[in-house]
Amino acid sequence: MKKELDPWSTQLISDYDYLFKEFGLQHFDAKLQKKLSGHRLYRRGIVFAHRDFDQFVQASKNKQPTAVMTGIKPSGEFHLGSKMTAEEIIFLQKQFNSRLFYAIADVEAYADNGLNFQQSHQNAVDNVADLLALGLDPEKTFVYKQSENMHVNNLANIFARKTTLNTLEALYGHQNLALYLAVLTQAGDILAPQLDAFDGPKHTVVPVGIDQDPHIRFTRDLSAKFKDEFGFITPAATFHKFFRALNGETKMSKRDPLNIMTLNDDNVLLKKKLANALTGGRATAEEQRRLGANPYVCVVFELMKYHFYDDDSALKDMEQDCKSGKLLCGECKAIRLKHIQEYYKKHQEKKKKARAQAEQILEQPIAFKKKKSN
Amino acid sequence: MKKELDPWSTQLISDYDYLFKEFGLQHFDAKLQKKLSGHRLYRRGIVFAHRDFDQFVQASKNKQPTAVMTGIKPSGEFHLGSKMTAEEIIFLQKQFNSRLFYAIADVEAYADNGLNFQQSHQNAVDNVADLLALGLDPEKTFVYKQSENMHVNNLANIFARKTTLNTLEALYGHQNLALYLAVLTQAGDILAPQLDAFDGPKHTVVPVGIDQDPHIRFTRDLSAKFKDEFGFITPAATFHKFFRALNGETKMSKRDPLNIMTLNDDNVLLKKKLANALTGGRATAEEQRRLGANPYVCVVFELMKYHFYDDDSALKDMEQDCKSGKLLCGECKAIRLKHIQEYYKKHQEKKKKARAQAEQILEQPIAFKKKKSN
Repeated sequence: MKKELDPWSTQLISDYDYLFKEFGLQHFDAKLQKKLSGHRLYRRGIVFAHRDFDQFVQASKNKQPTAVMTGIKPSGEFHLGSKMTAEEIIFLQKQFNSRLFYAIADVEAYADNGLNFQQSHQNAVDNVADLLALGLDPEKTFVYKQSENMHVNNLANIFARKTTLNTLEALYGHQNLALYLAVLTQAGDILAPQLDAFDGPKHTVVPVGIDQDPHIRFTRDLSAKFKDEFGFITPAATFHKFFRALNGETKMSKRDPLNIMTLNDDNVLLKKKLANALTGGRATAEEQRRLGANPYVCVVFELMKYHFYDDDSALKDMEQDCKSGKLLCGECKAIRLKHIQEYYKKHQEKKKKARAQAEQILEQPIAFKKKKSN
Repeated sequence: MKKELDPWSTQLISDYDYLFKEFGLQHFDAKLQKKLSGHRLYRRGIVFAHRDFDQFVQASKNKQPTAVMTGIKPSGEFHLGSKMTAEEIIFLQKQFNSRLFYAIADVEAYADNGLNFQQSHQNAVDNVADLLALGLDPEKTFVYKQSENMHVNNLANIFARKTTLNTLEALYGHQNLALYLAVLTQAGDILAPQLDAFDGPKHTVVPVGIDQDPHIRFTRDLSAKFKDEFGFITPAATFHKFFRALNGETKMSKRDPLNIMTLNDDNVLLKKKLANALTGGRATAEEQRRLGANPYVCVVFELMKYHFYDDDSALKDMEQDCKSGKLLCGECKAIRLKHIQEYYKKHQEKKKKARAQAEQILEQPIAFKKKKSN
């Protein structure tokens, strides 16, 4: 993605550069970029940085076992941000033949949102059905609830031993105890796949939004501190950019339900949301026909780029028809809405079929291997 | 126990009085004292204070379900302090027909002492064998490891939500995160018996040393904060005095192995330890025959009073023979050593038989009841 093609994010890109310098994020080199070009998220620079992902790729090439790790706080439906991470992990799982570990952060959902475990369970069933519909391979996936995975909780307790309050305060500011605990638990989630209970140390990659980098750095430090004891290999990470809310003002977040799209929105809701989405249109139709509009501030363009056009030529056509003034925003939205509604229809059909399996996955007790699982 | 009979602990008693006033500890009233007089620990005022234990007793009388809760950090062998708590819970279990919950704090042993779970397991087998030899009824007891009991860990996470760092700092001083976590986990241990997974709210008593009162107060506060959500009944506690180390200088603690007696000491070790124990003897034999000695500074007298003479008349004889100068310390120690060695012989025989059962108890997986266990 060239800078000048994406002016709405200029400032963000300049921030990103700062992150590369300040925190040592790594760019994807040409070879890595090519290897990952099968997915639009990499091809289009939406996943734009990493830490040690090259080592993960090398390990996979050497036929060493690898793991992809992520999770979700089951506080509601999948929105497009959750979908983005889901697509990434499913792609990585296939591409690198990795085991996938997926944490249902119900303990965190309780601490943050006051959801009890039953409510979290219901949401998790819906989330896992989305994952299956998006192409998750359940045979190579370990989905677990934090409330049932002792390995994760034990690691959190163990990590506390070498974690000072000062470290946490430096990373996160002065926060409450529940948040600090959630941070330790997330570190447990990320490193648990390397315990003997899950067949020991392995290269692991954690795909996250760039705002999650403090967790990644914290966990990488812990993996070094406990290397002698557990043999941890420092976990790798990939970072994706934020997807904006429909009004274009903030990142898409569950905290602002009117400005997000969830994977459960029906046709009426989709139409309404798209109608209200920010575009890069001109003040008048005449002006827009004459001067063209700006796709790079348009949330609908971003929607198609990030989520709904896998085909680069379809995206290119949209971009050109916008810039040339060929399509007015209303006309454009009607075309995209139709495409999105078709995507949703197919997704919902797949999801419906996946629901029973999702329930089954979430009700399986966790098999604890006892030996050497400390 | 009258004050003037126990001069070495005058200062401690005056401290204890302060605790009654400052922190609202309750005395055992005459009726309660009588009900508990079947055990020397209560009869002799070694268990000297409580919180809401009268309500626990009343609940038991009303045939409501009750629980006795305690635990051990499996960082070594049972010493006499552990034995004291063990005898108390076994007595309470029988006296009030209560379920007993016994936590093996292996997570804490890791955090505090760096013991891995396998080492903790080995120590725990030895500890549980001691419990069985002391008379624990395994049919009505739930022994669990912290590392395997999700209910406890989930509660710890849940409690963090309404716990500020300031609260913990006020109670414990500025400590590390692992200690704060251990405190939350202990609160989870104490309140877990009231979860639906263990048949719901019930009066619970926690017998502890007086130094553990901050945990008790903290947990009682939490039980009130989460009453609406879980229906917790405020847990009760009983408090026992410290047992001194053999040199008489500190309380008996695993941190000072040469000055403790463990339940695994052999005859040679017992003899050596008793020979070195602090007594209340005079400078010369002549002086002692003439003026008598002081049993109230003598650790051997305390040993017999707290641990090895259930029979009050045997203790009275010892006291008199000391005060009158009839027995010199060496003569006295020889008599007590013989008694103690006989006690150990019987205990070791019982313990040997109990070992296989202890292993079995600790290797049973925990049955999780899923419904409403949040």
